[in-house]
Amino acid sequence: MTETDCPVETPASGPREGAFGNAVALACRECGHQVELGPFYACPECFGPLEVSYEFPAITREEIEAGPRNIWRYQALLPVPTDIQSSPNTEPGFTRLLKADNLGRELGIENLWVKDDSTNPTNSFKDRVVACALSAARELGSKVFACPSTGNLANAVAAAGARAGIKTVVFIPSNLEHPKQVNSAIFTENLVAVDGNYDDVNKLASEIAGEEDGWAFVNVNVRPYYAEGSKTLGYEIAEQLGWRLPDQIVIPVASGSQLTKVDKAFQELIKLGLVEEKPYRIFGAQAEGCGPVATAYKAGTDAIRPVKPDTIAKSLAIGNPADGIYVLDIARRTGGAVEEVTDDEIREGIVLLARTEGIFTETAGGTTVAVTKKLVEVGALDPTQETVVINTGHGLKTLDAVSGQVSAAATIAPSYAAFKATGI
Amino acid sequence: MTETDCPVETPASGPREGAFGNAVALACRECGHQVELGPFYACPECFGPLEVSYEFPAITREEIEAGPRNIWRYQALLPVPTDIQSSPNTEPGFTRLLKADNLGRELGIENLWVKDDSTNPTNSFKDRVVACALSAARELGSKVFACPSTGNLANAVAAAGARAGIKTVVFIPSNLEHPKQVNSAIFTENLVAVDGNYDDVNKLASEIAGEEDGWAFVNVNVRPYYAEGSKTLGYEIAEQLGWRLPDQIVIPVASGSQLTKVDKAFQELIKLGLVEEKPYRIFGAQAEGCGPVATAYKAGTDAIRPVKPDTIAKSLAIGNPADGIYVLDIARRTGGAVEEVTDDEIREGIVLLARTEGIFTETAGGTTVAVTKKLVEVGALDPTQETVVINTGHGLKTLDAVSGQVSAAATIAPSYAAFKATGI
Repeated sequence: MTETDCPVETPASGPREGAFGNAVALACRECGHQVELGPFYACPECFGPLEVSYEFPAITREEIEAGPRNIWRYQALLPVPTDIQSSPNTEPGFTRLLKADNLGRELGIENLWVKDDSTNPTNSFKDRVVACALSAARELGSKVFACPSTGNLANAVAAAGARAGIKTVVFIPSNLEHPKQVNSAIFTENLVAVDGNYDDVNKLASEIAGEEDGWAFVNVNVRPYYAEGSKTLGYEIAEQLGWRLPDQIVIPVASGSQLTKVDKAFQELIKLGLVEEKPYRIFGAQAEGCGPVATAYKAGTDAIRPVKPDTIAKSLAIGNPADGIYVLDIARRTGGAVEEVTDDEIREGIVLLARTEGIFTETAGGTTVAVTKKLVEVGALDPTQETVVINTGHGLKTLDAVSGQVSAAATIAPSYAAFKATGI
Repeated sequence: MTETDCPVETPASGPREGAFGNAVALACRECGHQVELGPFYACPECFGPLEVSYEFPAITREEIEAGPRNIWRYQALLPVPTDIQSSPNTEPGFTRLLKADNLGRELGIENLWVKDDSTNPTNSFKDRVVACALSAARELGSKVFACPSTGNLANAVAAAGARAGIKTVVFIPSNLEHPKQVNSAIFTENLVAVDGNYDDVNKLASEIAGEEDGWAFVNVNVRPYYAEGSKTLGYEIAEQLGWRLPDQIVIPVASGSQLTKVDKAFQELIKLGLVEEKPYRIFGAQAEGCGPVATAYKAGTDAIRPVKPDTIAKSLAIGNPADGIYVLDIARRTGGAVEEVTDDEIREGIVLLARTEGIFTETAGGTTVAVTKKLVEVGALDPTQETVVINTGHGLKTLDAVSGQVSAAATIAPSYAAFKATGI
């Protein structure tokens, strides 16, 4: 697809002045070719993915710290207008960064933090990217706000669309966890279940995007703007550490976009002088049942072979990850790695995080914790260095994964004698 | 029970200097008698409930604004030490205050806000009170951190205890919603299901508190400290409005504690000169299936007759509310009211909030939205005045309440033709 047949309808006059903040163009990640800011996502020269590029003015820590307690404090670093706060949105971000000493002791890591995105408005990091996509859809005059999704994205799109008063249509695999289905259907009349896996749903979305006018598929035709939202995870971690980069960071990999954007965020902060330049290592976490990037990493190849997902970590179940190649680049360049764990290890990771730090994560977070454990065991992650683990979503959405593992210790009559008999 | 036979074990030396911040005593809400700060909750003179009283120094907006982005920014106003941040806790609070223009239009209210506590660490306002109770338990040298709960409190206690590394035991009615059970069991080995309703569970907890040493039941024997945590809801609303009180506020009523503490917070802010004094009206929201305070309010009496709860709003299902009498006082003194709605209205309230503002609330929040609607209809709430509605918990915990109401619009094959056939 070239820019000329892009399906999103732009207002006749084009986007208003300042619609995309300090962004100046879309640049191809493969060949560097630049196109104007608009509803484009593929390079007209080489079909490579387009990415937002900026001309940043001087930006100070003080300006950022004076901003709102959500991702819009980083407005100057995102493709959104300066008045973004005045448009109804879910106001995501600035989630907790918790010092995780208990988990650190269990994993043998001296200085460990958990960035907890499960407390976002719809309980996953997707609220960040969707907020940026919503801004783009609004500036581009889109009439429908849509996505293919493994669940978390559907939740975020449906909620953000409801609040913004724009029609939403969300597409999910029909076998998705029940809580994630209800958590979308509660917000929109247009939840469409598709008989197929995520890659099938994604393909259908691209087809609809090609046929219909005025649809903004957040992760398809406004993907360049959408993806920039993940940078805010990197900005927040640095700011919450006291304007400092961690030594090591472990990030789950589905499409791979989040990992690449955290790296981009760190690079931007260094270039802007907001943090001191230093080496950092980025690690990717996958499930064995859908680990195409981990497989390629271990094989020492750039060729990522698509897989048919079979894992409880459904939010990571993207068999053909669009940004997998960039994840490999970053892991290798920074001295990180991409590792994978079994479904049983994922379940153990969920319980471990809950019992040590009081955070109930979904299967993706269980994957990240379990991979962190494995990285220490195989010697890939240095346990003496400051390490951040990202928790991207909430365990209430994937209850079935642990329902069989945890339960009431006892059911008793309402009497002290009955309680004493439990031995607790 | 008198202070001398209180079951919590205090360190031989007593609490350390500054253990309770600017708090100076516990004062009886009925007779005014004061006792020293300690593990006491009932007046030794009249058996009335004890409440924390303070001698506040001058406190400025700037000092508060320079604090952390959680409830500890209000440390000086809470019974916690100045170094509270350095002890592991879940760091709750400073949740979103969203301008709710879409919901306002639906309800006919011109200037409406939603304070959204569903994004707290365990997705309800209970994280606030539990964080204060945890501090008290720590300062008092308690060995077990426990509670009777309708669900949300169990989640918060189990998570906070895990993070703090203290043994937790949580008691719930055995018929509690499955998600709330898993959301406790994930954090603790000691979830005890009790065959009975909340009032039975509460009675059992009091019995255990009287028999065992060193147990801090957050809402029983450290209740005075615990309850102060709800004040932070009031502080945040005022700060987030730009250091200003709203004209009207609608708050769900279970025990009634939250409503009374929001009033206390507003009064403290006025006395400290942090906000301008002005009239405000406080409204209470209950379910018809458990509306003892609403019933007394409408009957014009102070006599609250206990009821046997029968409502989907399980987190409000306290048939014998400890602070009901104070709720009546405040509603009448401020020109508010206490209203109640049916389970069907509660379900409609949940869907209405989701579809208009992208917030998925639990049954308690559905109750508050539905009561707000009813208060406008009956003319009790002035639709031209600035109004805040508190959402206390998350819909993912009470999925069954709406599972039958919302679902996928269609399940289709992964083809464009199949999508077009849906008519969306």
